Amino acid sequence: MASEADDDLSVEALARLASLRQSIDNIDAALIHLLAERFKCTQQVGVLKAQNDMPASDPDREKRQVTRLRGLAEQADLDPAFAEKWFNFVVDEVIHHHERLASQRDE
Amino acid sequence: MASEADDDLSVEALARLASLRQSIDNIDAALIHLLAERFKCTQQVGVLKAQNDMPASDPDREKRQVTRLRGLAEQADLDPAFAEKWFNFVVDEVIHHHERLASQRDE
Repeated sequence: MASEADDDLSVEALARLASLRQSIDNIDAALIHLLAERFKCTQQVGVLKAQNDMPASDPDREKRQVTRLRGLAEQADLDPAFAEKWFNFVVDEVIHHHERLASQRDE
Repeated sequence: MASEADDDLSVEALARLASLRQSIDNIDAALIHLLAERFKCTQQVGVLKAQNDMPASDPDREKRQVTRLRGLAEQADLDPAFAEKWFNFVVDEVIHHHERLASQRDE
């Protein structure tokens, strides 16, 4: 009987796991498409900055973004420290892109 | 005259920069809310795994996710290498959460 109960639990747990994973996959598809759109914007910012000799990074703007995103994360019940770490990870990639654009222009 | 043209370029460039930054801020708000939703799902996966003594990480599932997300990134014109790096960054955080849940259960 205990083993049957275990089996039930396991079948139920696996079905629940499959359902959650399907939601995660849907969310990930949306995240990838939004990240693609974000990079289209930052790509344009990069070209604009390179054309107008503006610096690749803007620490004041980044500080304001972090403050805002931490606030949004708190409202959405996401760890604000993770939101900040995640933002820095994305911005680092963007700055590398901008630096590459600027150096291509200098060549 | 050259200086006037420079000013025009600069005013136009700054207006374009402000517009692009507004789009980036909108996209970031959407990304933060989707990440919050993703963590709600992975949080439930973590509880389920801890309750059923399933391992915190699942390398086969992660391989399939990376392959799928690289494909989606290519279709959306996002660097697939960045998509993979980004995914690993998010999954690392999720696994730490799962391990913390499992260790809380063992205590």
